[in-house]
Amino acid sequence: YRFNAYIVVFVCFCMKDTAAEVAGYADVAKRIIDLAVFGAAQNRSYRRLADFTDAIGSRVSGSQSLEMAIKYMHNAMSQDGLDVHLEPVKIPHWVRGKESAEMIMPRSKNLAMLGLGSSVGTPPEGIKAEVLVVQSFDELKLRASEAAGKIVVFNQPFVSYGETVAYRAFGASEAAKVGAVATLIRSITPFSVNSPHTGWQDYQAGVNRIPTACITVEDAELMWRLAQRGQKIVVRLTMEAKTLPDADSFNTVAEIKGWEHPEQVVLLSGHLDSWDVGQGAMDDGGGAMISWEVLSLIKDLGLRPRRTLRTVLWTAEEQGGVGAQQYFNLHKVNLNNFDLVMESDLGTFTPVALQFTGSDAARKVMEEVVKLLAPINTTKLESHGEGTDISPWLEAGVPGASLHVEDSRYFWFHHSEGDTMTVQDPAEMNLCSALWAVVAYVVADLQDMLPR
Amino acid sequence: YRFNAYIVVFVCFCMKDTAAEVAGYADVAKRIIDLAVFGAAQNRSYRRLADFTDAIGSRVSGSQSLEMAIKYMHNAMSQDGLDVHLEPVKIPHWVRGKESAEMIMPRSKNLAMLGLGSSVGTPPEGIKAEVLVVQSFDELKLRASEAAGKIVVFNQPFVSYGETVAYRAFGASEAAKVGAVATLIRSITPFSVNSPHTGWQDYQAGVNRIPTACITVEDAELMWRLAQRGQKIVVRLTMEAKTLPDADSFNTVAEIKGWEHPEQVVLLSGHLDSWDVGQGAMDDGGGAMISWEVLSLIKDLGLRPRRTLRTVLWTAEEQGGVGAQQYFNLHKVNLNNFDLVMESDLGTFTPVALQFTGSDAARKVMEEVVKLLAPINTTKLESHGEGTDISPWLEAGVPGASLHVEDSRYFWFHHSEGDTMTVQDPAEMNLCSALWAVVAYVVADLQDMLPR
Repeated sequence: YRFNAYIVVFVCFCMKDTAAEVAGYADVAKRIIDLAVFGAAQNRSYRRLADFTDAIGSRVSGSQSLEMAIKYMHNAMSQDGLDVHLEPVKIPHWVRGKESAEMIMPRSKNLAMLGLGSSVGTPPEGIKAEVLVVQSFDELKLRASEAAGKIVVFNQPFVSYGETVAYRAFGASEAAKVGAVATLIRSITPFSVNSPHTGWQDYQAGVNRIPTACITVEDAELMWRLAQRGQKIVVRLTMEAKTLPDADSFNTVAEIKGWEHPEQVVLLSGHLDSWDVGQGAMDDGGGAMISWEVLSLIKDLGLRPRRTLRTVLWTAEEQGGVGAQQYFNLHKVNLNNFDLVMESDLGTFTPVALQFTGSDAARKVMEEVVKLLAPINTTKLESHGEGTDISPWLEAGVPGASLHVEDSRYFWFHHSEGDTMTVQDPAEMNLCSALWAVVAYVVADLQDMLPR
Repeated sequence: YRFNAYIVVFVCFCMKDTAAEVAGYADVAKRIIDLAVFGAAQNRSYRRLADFTDAIGSRVSGSQSLEMAIKYMHNAMSQDGLDVHLEPVKIPHWVRGKESAEMIMPRSKNLAMLGLGSSVGTPPEGIKAEVLVVQSFDELKLRASEAAGKIVVFNQPFVSYGETVAYRAFGASEAAKVGAVATLIRSITPFSVNSPHTGWQDYQAGVNRIPTACITVEDAELMWRLAQRGQKIVVRLTMEAKTLPDADSFNTVAEIKGWEHPEQVVLLSGHLDSWDVGQGAMDDGGGAMISWEVLSLIKDLGLRPRRTLRTVLWTAEEQGGVGAQQYFNLHKVNLNNFDLVMESDLGTFTPVALQFTGSDAARKVMEEVVKLLAPINTTKLESHGEGTDISPWLEAGVPGASLHVEDSRYFWFHHSEGDTMTVQDPAEMNLCSALWAVVAYVVADLQDMLPR
């Protein structure tokens, strides 16, 4: 009993101590914010993003553009005076080739489409087949006897990305199990101007691999209405898609070494690859640029934290976090030296909160840290943070943080030709950079690592 | 002095009389609204629009689809028990053919594009030229000496459709005057998912005719940023576009004859043609369907007004109100028998108001009429109503009315592949039909025609 009381007193003392220690960073936080939002660095992350994406364009796993993008960033961050190196990764190399879909019956109509990543192609003359339109996996099961030899069109409503993406990921194998010859999946988006949205899909082991592509919300709804009226629908799908041998690529790593504990690391990240449409400005050029911007801001201010600030620009995130998994495998031996891993991969619009995953004790520290963001009114700490690329670390117990932004339009553009600089705003990116930099710098400079 | 007083008394007496007369239609207005919004006709105009646009698709002036559309509507309205006839019109026949645009320098990128209506084509190998990007006609004038031999890209900001559409309409001739070989116009839209928006354009007499197409907001902004950085941009534009001899077409006319004054007419209208992209559901399938729906509702209720209710589905509106102008030319001899001309061509979303053009005396009557719409909360009368297709009548002094709907997203989809049934809502169309029917029926049944 008395022993417990001692512990409580001790914990309270420590927390009070940490609160005071973090509060001591108010001035430096203000300097970082001023530089990023109002000072010489204003709009820099936006300009860098525009220069980069305008020069390179999209950069899908395995492409020459991705190679160029990595060289570009290696060069640009080196010229920025940072310590940069590349860490080799083998990555998937799927190529789209020429592709098209056309409704032939009840009338001729071109269907805007994008083959899904990892899909097999069709024979050169395409696959011409009658269509079965379903609204859910359940409906597919109920109508399994109608599916043999057909192209299954999934016209599932959009509920949320996390829930609805299952149709893109697993639609082909589910349809193949009941004898379908191809699938067309309604794009995973709440909004459309007849825009197809691509993405990765997963064939299930032991199931026949059939070609699969996304079509637009509009065309999926059209075919559903035609089917409801009992009209026979015939579509021809032609895809040259194929998977080549794995390609050589790299995670791009830049850092400012810590002065006291260089082996201890606060890791900032975004992914450099994108889909092969649009410019990959939002997904995830913005996340990559603000993670670089943090190092620039700290350097510009002549700061150097106790621990190392490390920016990693992942490769082949879109194929299932390939570069990030490789990085984890190589570096998990130093798990105990990773203080905090941070990822921005949900856009760099107006920041709403920092999402944090970690122990209650670590959360208490982070609650103090986000108070330093009062000048930009983003002092909210949310209680889960997940991201494809940092999840291995979180699962291993390392504290993690993700950037939560106003993302109501994120999925309108996601994985489509609409993911371009046009959706980005320099003032919003300034706020993201400021938030990202204050959190990373302060955590990297505290006396102690975050408690596990 | 006393004479004036007599007039005032007389006018007051008349107005009071009219107010009472219009108020007497409250019950019949309620019956129309109930049938359209809650009763057996609920969602009928939406279903008819879906059946029609799903079956026909887009239907540009001169196309076989437009011919099919006119036959379809003649047949459908006849089967609905209406008196239907066709009135011949010669219409423009411009065909798009194959077309593409590609940025070649500083890197290779496909540019989503749509040739503009009436544009000439390019040589078969296309036009390959350096690009001059300008943001306004003023900038083009200032930089006239740079334009010779170039493809001029207009990256004008979107202010409003009415203002900004000048770039689509006149961009080619303005650029040709300073020696440009082709123009690419940023699509006239406040929002984009890399979506090109086509439309008509006008060559100026005596000016060299150069090919012209719209590109996306995203690509116009991209080329503007590249140009700002001093980078040389080269584009290849290839268009098979050409104008064929005028084609035969028809305005489609259906009516319910008035029992007392069959020669006097309340005219309801929308246009049946569309651009050759999307389904033309919003522009202007919806306007056509609610104008048909009015006749169906009146017939279903066993009503027959004093004057004739006439629905006209114009042809070739998109080429400059060609069918409507022809109709005016033929029927203006009976100008004095046209009581009110109505047009819906800005969408059939939630109705906001009736826009009215006419004398103060006529407005006083219309203010009473819209009070009958209290059950659906659309009693607002606005003070200008314009539309391409009814403007000749308005200019000749005939009272006119247009449907004003919540149109914040109208230009997001306008003249693009995004103009489909997906943007339409059955409940919203019910409200439009109810408003349209109450106004048309009551005006057609009042003792007197609207005062000029």
